[in-house]
Amino acid sequence: MAKRLKICINTGGGDAPGLNAVIEAVTMAAYNRQWEVYGIKSGYAGLLNTEEIIQLTPEKVYGIASLGGTILGTTNKGNPFMMPVCNAAGECEQRDLSDRVMDNFRRLHFDALVAVGGDGSLDIAHRFAAKGMPVVGVPKTIDNDMGGTVITFGFDTAVSIATEAIDRLHSTAKSHDRVMVVELMGRNAGFIALNSGISGNADVILIPEIPFDIDKVCEKLMENELRGHKYAIMVVAEGALPKGGDVITKGAAEPGRQHVILGGIAEYVAKEISQRTGKDSRSMVLGHLQRGGSPTTFDRLLSLRFGAAAVRAIEQGKFDHMVGLQSPDIVLVPLEKALGMQKRVRVDGDTVLTGRDLGICFGD
Amino acid sequence: MAKRLKICINTGGGDAPGLNAVIEAVTMAAYNRQWEVYGIKSGYAGLLNTEEIIQLTPEKVYGIASLGGTILGTTNKGNPFMMPVCNAAGECEQRDLSDRVMDNFRRLHFDALVAVGGDGSLDIAHRFAAKGMPVVGVPKTIDNDMGGTVITFGFDTAVSIATEAIDRLHSTAKSHDRVMVVELMGRNAGFIALNSGISGNADVILIPEIPFDIDKVCEKLMENELRGHKYAIMVVAEGALPKGGDVITKGAAEPGRQHVILGGIAEYVAKEISQRTGKDSRSMVLGHLQRGGSPTTFDRLLSLRFGAAAVRAIEQGKFDHMVGLQSPDIVLVPLEKALGMQKRVRVDGDTVLTGRDLGICFGD
Amino acid sequence: MAKRLKICINTGGGDAPGLNAVIEAVTMAAYNRQWEVYGIKSGYAGLLNTEEIIQLTPEKVYGIASLGGTILGTTNKGNPFMMPVCNAAGECEQRDLSDRVMDNFRRLHFDALVAVGGDGSLDIAHRFAAKGMPVVGVPKTIDNDMGGTVITFGFDTAVSIATEAIDRLHSTAKSHDRVMVVELMGRNAGFIALNSGISGNADVILIPEIPFDIDKVCEKLMENELRGHKYAIMVVAEGALPKGGDVITKGAAEPGRQHVILGGIAEYVAKEISQRTGKDSRSMVLGHLQRGGSPTTFDRLLSLRFGAAAVRAIEQGKFDHMVGLQSPDIVLVPLEKALGMQKRVRVDGDTVLTGRDLGICFGD
Amino acid sequence: MAKRLKICINTGGGDAPGLNAVIEAVTMAAYNRQWEVYGIKSGYAGLLNTEEIIQLTPEKVYGIASLGGTILGTTNKGNPFMMPVCNAAGECEQRDLSDRVMDNFRRLHFDALVAVGGDGSLDIAHRFAAKGMPVVGVPKTIDNDMGGTVITFGFDTAVSIATEAIDRLHSTAKSHDRVMVVELMGRNAGFIALNSGISGNADVILIPEIPFDIDKVCEKLMENELRGHKYAIMVVAEGALPKGGDVITKGAAEPGRQHVILGGIAEYVAKEISQRTGKDSRSMVLGHLQRGGSPTTFDRLLSLRFGAAAVRAIEQGKFDHMVGLQSPDIVLVPLEKALGMQKRVRVDGDTVLTGRDLGICFGD
Repeated sequence: MAKRLKICINTGGGDAPGLNAVIEAVTMAAYNRQWEVYGIKSGYAGLLNTEEIIQLTPEKVYGIASLGGTILGTTNKGNPFMMPVCNAAGECEQRDLSDRVMDNFRRLHFDALVAVGGDGSLDIAHRFAAKGMPVVGVPKTIDNDMGGTVITFGFDTAVSIATEAIDRLHSTAKSHDRVMVVELMGRNAGFIALNSGISGNADVILIPEIPFDIDKVCEKLMENELRGHKYAIMVVAEGALPKGGDVITKGAAEPGRQHVILGGIAEYVAKEISQRTGKDSRSMVLGHLQRGGSPTTFDRLLSLRFGAAAVRAIEQGKFDHMVGLQSPDIVLVPLEKALGMQKRVRVDGDTVLTGRDLGICFGD
Repeated sequence: MAKRLKICINTGGGDAPGLNAVIEAVTMAAYNRQWEVYGIKSGYAGLLNTEEIIQLTPEKVYGIASLGGTILGTTNKGNPFMMPVCNAAGECEQRDLSDRVMDNFRRLHFDALVAVGGDGSLDIAHRFAAKGMPVVGVPKTIDNDMGGTVITFGFDTAVSIATEAIDRLHSTAKSHDRVMVVELMGRNAGFIALNSGISGNADVILIPEIPFDIDKVCEKLMENELRGHKYAIMVVAEGALPKGGDVITKGAAEPGRQHVILGGIAEYVAKEISQRTGKDSRSMVLGHLQRGGSPTTFDRLLSLRFGAAAVRAIEQGKFDHMVGLQSPDIVLVPLEKALGMQKRVRVDGDTVLTGRDLGICFGD
Repeated sequence: MAKRLKICINTGGGDAPGLNAVIEAVTMAAYNRQWEVYGIKSGYAGLLNTEEIIQLTPEKVYGIASLGGTILGTTNKGNPFMMPVCNAAGECEQRDLSDRVMDNFRRLHFDALVAVGGDGSLDIAHRFAAKGMPVVGVPKTIDNDMGGTVITFGFDTAVSIATEAIDRLHSTAKSHDRVMVVELMGRNAGFIALNSGISGNADVILIPEIPFDIDKVCEKLMENELRGHKYAIMVVAEGALPKGGDVITKGAAEPGRQHVILGGIAEYVAKEISQRTGKDSRSMVLGHLQRGGSPTTFDRLLSLRFGAAAVRAIEQGKFDHMVGLQSPDIVLVPLEKALGMQKRVRVDGDTVLTGRDLGICFGD
Repeated sequence: MAKRLKICINTGGGDAPGLNAVIEAVTMAAYNRQWEVYGIKSGYAGLLNTEEIIQLTPEKVYGIASLGGTILGTTNKGNPFMMPVCNAAGECEQRDLSDRVMDNFRRLHFDALVAVGGDGSLDIAHRFAAKGMPVVGVPKTIDNDMGGTVITFGFDTAVSIATEAIDRLHSTAKSHDRVMVVELMGRNAGFIALNSGISGNADVILIPEIPFDIDKVCEKLMENELRGHKYAIMVVAEGALPKGGDVITKGAAEPGRQHVILGGIAEYVAKEISQRTGKDSRSMVLGHLQRGGSPTTFDRLLSLRFGAAAVRAIEQGKFDHMVGLQSPDIVLVPLEKALGMQKRVRVDGDTVLTGRDLGICFGD
């Protein structure tokens, strides 16, 4: 008879639609093996402060797959390998508390950890694996920039929300002969902007992988105008950059990801277009709408498959790996290998080619 | 046998989901009476330049009720009673071209005009009625601030989109213990913010009808914090104002309606909260997402009912009136009376009371 | 200082989107008055078996307004005034257990009951009021056939789901030149069929209020065919009846409401059309899809307003009444009066007229 | 300078969300190469009767990617290799009219055909390729049962619609302690039922690839009952079969695909469960709702990529191939090879394993 394991799961980093579905699948797959499963709240903090650990049961996870957010909280309260610790006088230093995490993990008799997170969280997971913790990773990023998997959960939802927003902007841009510049997420990758821009019938798409020339963009808009198409929808990835230019998003502590109130790339682009073409141009930042709320059916299923596959990996003793999608299969990829790969939009890939075929301007 | 009339329809002002449904209903109701019906493009401009008039047929309008935008264009190219006219030297003056509109209307043998628009457009319609044009109005405003009707089309869609956005912001605000301040449309009325704030489970709602005290808002957030509710969703109407304060949205050519890039009320509120409470606060302006795209089923039906009722009003010779909803009936209201009424949120009405009962803070 | 009341709430009858929002609003409005509030499970059964009572707290209801179903269960386990009671030998009789309910209500020191339900449940509530129970009703029916209120929650959701389904059927009916007959709910009223049929661009709508002549329907389809419109969408209310005909839904224990597997009105109509016109005709019963799942924003808000108004009614000592919408206000209506009114589609009302104006055939 | 080609496109077989997006992409990709592009209506019929050919322009296809249906009509009016031809006396015979199609194709100076269709239509395309027509296929099936591509457009939409329906059924099944049996499409494959059943939290999933034992299903339901889970959602693929049993869907001219009014597999299963367990069981057939209407964003993008890739294939002279998705790339697959492969759910694949891990019963 198989051993009854005792496993735990945490979720780290920003919100991504599908987190709860991963938790539901891990819980149910463990429960159906008669294992015990625990949720560690707030990333690794729960293994420093063991009060933040809750037992997960079928009742607690029933039906949560369709809900946004995460019942475990995603706020990373720091990296246990470099945790800020402050004394009464307010003086702080970074301390390596990873041994305390390891001690708690062993003291609680956990047999494995399912770590759900982005490259930061999975890097921490890999370091714990090196210290002897049996860990299986589940990749999470709405930006789709992680290696080792064709896609991650949350991305399909983000692209869908962005496309719906672009759809809605067409009618109002059209009725006012206006240029609407929408800034989308993606960090240093242009996947969300590319996919939703093509799906949403954008006239211009600017992504980090293709540095843009603002004059080329203006030419496109003027050509459209001559053909009677007086309004325009432009989709700009937060990490898009002008050719040979400096970084534009001044004031951003973390470049790209933040909604920079004092000016982001979309605002910059809208202003330049206004000045150069005289067209009424407006910018908007879609922001957090892209990463919250209920997952699409695609993301629900992918998350459930990821969660169940993580439990099967534990059963097989396959640690220091993460689950990944190599369509149509779920595979296991060594964390080391996955962490070494970062995905970017392939400039000569068929999706960019599709955009060019449709007449979309990439500013190059 | 009834006379076969020849009628026309125009749509003026900003975009509102449901415009195409009104056009479909007017076209079909006229067609089924064996009338002719024409669409005047770009507001009244089509009656100055008669090339901008198209015949509407069942084929042209089939199925457009579910589509956003308007097949007639909503850009008002000016008020015919005060039309900017420029000479070759670039010198412009305002001229009253209303007689030319009247001449064209008669020369084309139109028996009636269905004017779809907000208070501005309906005021123009009323002035043309005074000059002898048989006109029936259809009220249009997503802001729900027009008198003479319980509700207008576009409002239910705007509230639904805003609520869905608020729903999505909960999970990400929660996972980062953050205060999210969302700015919604409404001009000088708080209907969109109030209805979507309550539906979307907001912690704070600020509307023009209830001037707010920023300290009261901060108190509420700190109380929530003490009860373990560390994040907050705040919904702010674009026209919201602090008690005894000046207008905040500097730089807005048209106060309220525009997305003021250099700072709107939401940005102001987020900054104040950040400074006073130390909480991580972000603002976002939902903007044009609220007014574009497909109408909800509610708005589709209301628009179809409005359009058909306008044609019945023409049949009955009931001019200088607009259609309006007095649930569950469509009624006819004299334009003069409707234009004299502006709706605001009733501070002691049951919707505000519902908000208070739910524990929502209005900042007063 | 106001007395701290102890109130309870139950939900009876079939599912309706918005039930949880009523529960959330009642709970929060009571909590914010520092009252205690309890949920009685399974209709009145919880007052026969007091183990089925749970305390409702802000934590338990947080965010449930957007979820379908009801956390209290809606299965009526019988009417306490005529409760089936069986002995060990399996012999059953109906007994009046209403006094036991009254005793338990008093023994638990409840000050008031919020009864959420349809005409059946509210009739029971009214009888308990006559026995001295302080009760406030909240009307619930997706069919919109209750008097005393312009509309009830769940109806907007049902119409929206039905319209979306009709939208989807167009493209497939068109690509196969097919007649699609969709059967919708509504008991003896045609509101859902009428509103979604108009919104969804149906060619034919059959409702109980307008008995139909199948030959008229066939004529319409053949006329369409001649005009090149070869497919058709027909919307049929479950209670629709042919002129002078018998009831068609044989085998229905409860006429109308049930999905009658051995043949319902839609199947009957599809067969008749097939035989008379030779056109490929298919029927489908939308069934429970119309009554489950998340409420629309409209229904969320209406339900929250109803719940909060019920608590204010208790505060004011206004019992034996139900809340109702008289747009834009929530009013209180004596239960006796509301129960005596049943709503039907007004055959000469503007919604039916709109349908006729659009060219929709009602079979008369 | 490249030759300016003249190409055409047809769509064959049943409706699938995304058809219009393929047409838009083919049109735009051709237009941007300064090619001419024509749409052939009603499958191959347009090449028999050349009046059914329309020129496609950017104006005609602008924005159609988000609309359901197909602007070209999908009704196959027969296979040109075996076309029914009838004389005045009503005597019909099948004739091979493929040479007439070839003649018209050449006479109109077409350089290539993009054939969008399922296995039937692509088989015809392959036979025309053998006769010398330069043809590129685009695979279309909502059932996901075609080889040579990881997925086809329409499938993601079908799974999403089915999942949303299942979501809605939970609350009403729960409130009545009922077993709901939903029949989904898929022909002889279980992909739609499997994916939406897992995403929608079904208790039981029956698919053709796993013959079921009704007693195993009943056991599962009774176990659930004992654990307090009194209602159940069962998802049944139209092609599901009992172990060792005969085909159940009597009366189906084309087994599986048709909505068999006299009884389909869901009705059979519901009856059996009712009889064996005494539980209130209902069946519903989701039917055409799964295949009509607007595509999901996923399907829009995939369709656009397929359409653009088909034009690039023509440019490269790569005929008698079809486009296919090998994530993340679009590839070209010889039609002969693709037609020889049929996909079925892999019984030991990770999706079925995920279902088992979640505790879903497959009846085996």
